[in-house]
Amino acid sequence: MLSASLFLAEHGTAEEFHIDSARLQQMLTELSQFGANPEGGVSRIAFADADRAAREWIIGRMTDAGLDVWVDQAANIHGRRAGTEADLPAILFGSHIDTVPNGGNFDGNLGSLAALEVMLTLNDEPARTRHPLQMVIWAAEDSGNGLFGSRSVTRGPYPGELDEVDAAGVSLADRLRRFGVDPTKIADSRLSPRDYAGYLELHIEQGPVLFRQGIQIGVVEGIVGVQHFDVRVEGLANHAGTTPMNERQDALLAAAQLILAVREEVRARRGSQVGTVGWAKVSPGAPNVVPGLVQMPIELRALDPAMIEDMIKRIRSRAAAIAERENVSISIERYTNSEAALTDPHLQNLIERAARDAGFSSMRMPSGAGHDAQIVAAFGIPTGMIFAPSKDGISHSPKEWTDWDDCARGAEVLYRTIRALDQE
Amino acid sequence: MLSASLFLAEHGTAEEFHIDSARLQQMLTELSQFGANPEGGVSRIAFADADRAAREWIIGRMTDAGLDVWVDQAANIHGRRAGTEADLPAILFGSHIDTVPNGGNFDGNLGSLAALEVMLTLNDEPARTRHPLQMVIWAAEDSGNGLFGSRSVTRGPYPGELDEVDAAGVSLADRLRRFGVDPTKIADSRLSPRDYAGYLELHIEQGPVLFRQGIQIGVVEGIVGVQHFDVRVEGLANHAGTTPMNERQDALLAAAQLILAVREEVRARRGSQVGTVGWAKVSPGAPNVVPGLVQMPIELRALDPAMIEDMIKRIRSRAAAIAERENVSISIERYTNSEAALTDPHLQNLIERAARDAGFSSMRMPSGAGHDAQIVAAFGIPTGMIFAPSKDGISHSPKEWTDWDDCARGAEVLYRTIRALDQE
Repeated sequence: MLSASLFLAEHGTAEEFHIDSARLQQMLTELSQFGANPEGGVSRIAFADADRAAREWIIGRMTDAGLDVWVDQAANIHGRRAGTEADLPAILFGSHIDTVPNGGNFDGNLGSLAALEVMLTLNDEPARTRHPLQMVIWAAEDSGNGLFGSRSVTRGPYPGELDEVDAAGVSLADRLRRFGVDPTKIADSRLSPRDYAGYLELHIEQGPVLFRQGIQIGVVEGIVGVQHFDVRVEGLANHAGTTPMNERQDALLAAAQLILAVREEVRARRGSQVGTVGWAKVSPGAPNVVPGLVQMPIELRALDPAMIEDMIKRIRSRAAAIAERENVSISIERYTNSEAALTDPHLQNLIERAARDAGFSSMRMPSGAGHDAQIVAAFGIPTGMIFAPSKDGISHSPKEWTDWDDCARGAEVLYRTIRALDQE
Repeated sequence: MLSASLFLAEHGTAEEFHIDSARLQQMLTELSQFGANPEGGVSRIAFADADRAAREWIIGRMTDAGLDVWVDQAANIHGRRAGTEADLPAILFGSHIDTVPNGGNFDGNLGSLAALEVMLTLNDEPARTRHPLQMVIWAAEDSGNGLFGSRSVTRGPYPGELDEVDAAGVSLADRLRRFGVDPTKIADSRLSPRDYAGYLELHIEQGPVLFRQGIQIGVVEGIVGVQHFDVRVEGLANHAGTTPMNERQDALLAAAQLILAVREEVRARRGSQVGTVGWAKVSPGAPNVVPGLVQMPIELRALDPAMIEDMIKRIRSRAAAIAERENVSISIERYTNSEAALTDPHLQNLIERAARDAGFSSMRMPSGAGHDAQIVAAFGIPTGMIFAPSKDGISHSPKEWTDWDDCARGAEVLYRTIRALDQE
């Protein structure tokens, strides 16, 4: 199946589009003006001025598309198109338009504008769906603690999150008020799983897998769980000139072995799991002092929680051996835990079929990055997620790029999947 | 020979003292009041108030001892006792009384007050020496760039050093002026090697070798050379969730291997050479980002410069292999260079004989830390250096400790070595 669709795609003869690729490109280009920076990227932090302007723009476009538009009490923007059968649950789809500082033009933007493009395509045909269609622009996915909008209308905000102040000293609650919503009423905006037949999100992969393999569509099997651990390696700081090599309790030498052990244990199993040590703080931190303390994080990601537990168990065992050998102590404390969320197998099949029918190559894969889809899936709404290739796997950077043809393919698969789901 | 003197020392019967151990202890205790801190240590940074008070105190004691006292234009304090043969060069000996922040009570202080104790002992006997004796308190050994006083009256200050400003915004030249010396006249204070028959310095070891082996006196063979290198490991920062393990160019994984390779190459040779990676700065430095850059120092110390060159050559070769394997680039740049200084073999023999004659155990060893003695030796004055044991090898800390008996033994060996040298 895969080789057949690849063959067709390579010859460029079998691709069939309903959506308007030029209009999608034009909308993406227009949105990228809000918060544009000289590097060609965008800084559109949630609840800052550029985000406000972009939100007003997209509300205008959604209204122009004839949608029934509202903003909920977590600042998520919704736009609804009526179905022919009023009793059916809605099909929900969308993404986000906020970005990381100095981010790119596709992360979130593609899924948001593809959702609008689906609505516009249906208007053009014109076509009615059986189910109501509801597009959503989730608030603050890539800002603050992340995933604020989707979390807030499902499980609720984190305890104390609304009172947290940003660098400017403004609380999240006040930011929300400035955006015209009342954060004390977030609970009123809580979604109900039975109101939705499913949730679909198109997103750029943000990794290199599709790009390297020349595959056009990723069928996401789930969003990996992420576990963060705090590592503390304690040795003894000492004079680097007068302390013989065999008398040292060098925390950095022990940490170096642990960093390598993390990779070995992650790679010891087949699969797409990853493990990272992203930084290390060495104390006291002088060139002429033997390091007495190293603090560093270990981050492990995998779709299967048991695999993460097995990896950290083996890493702890390696750490104990290193500590013994180097005469230091090593503690490894779990400090955050984001559970894996699996997508709906039936929606995976619908997405895969939509890609094949449109003449696009596809593959199944996990998402290594977090997405609103994982929140919605964990909330009990059947969730499907579509990936478009990221050039060189680069994201959260002005260099983030997805070819316009790949943007269009992703939007087309979103359209076709919604239509297929609507027929069920 | 060594075992014989150990035997005698253990039985406590053969130790013979000329110097007054109680007076030495009393002077050390008195000096430790200047800059004393609640942790039991001392912060007596050069040219700060505590240093000024301590200098005034020791000048008073030196004057009371009948010495001809003067302060040179680099703020070094000299005290001279005439000899019977006016044409003979002087025997120079001493140490420093400034400390690192939150330092200890023995580093520098022991050698300074043992020098004064030698003068007081000669007064008590009373005894005349053939050579003039000159004790010196070197300025700013452990502050600022280090070794300021001894450098300034030998090779001269570093270029631009006098204009450097401290944290309070005051230049070193202004600090010196406030201490009543004229830094523009430093050259007038330049020593001449032919005026001195030798230089002797007693100092605490600041390492654990004597303490661990239960040896009472170290006969220093030389002060090791120190070479610092700047290491820069450049990989590619990337999303820790979406970048597969085999696609990564993780600078920290490469750095970890290099940190271990440094130790392996240092330990691959017999000897007391050491090598240290004292810190590592990881960028961008987030738990969910694959490290793109690691900067870190490598410090290598050895008595033999050729050994340092051989070690760094092998480390560079290891770095090249690591860079190739990990798909990163590694640069290693030399940025400072302090050459090894050997002590005078004849003075080593005199010190060893003095220890044996007094009934103390001794061993020959390099100094891993820097001392004024290395500056004087490199200037061409025959130099000898005596080490006293440091409890647990701890120094530059309020926990720095040398037993009073060991202080007395060091002072006695200084006294005996001066007397022996005077007879030649």
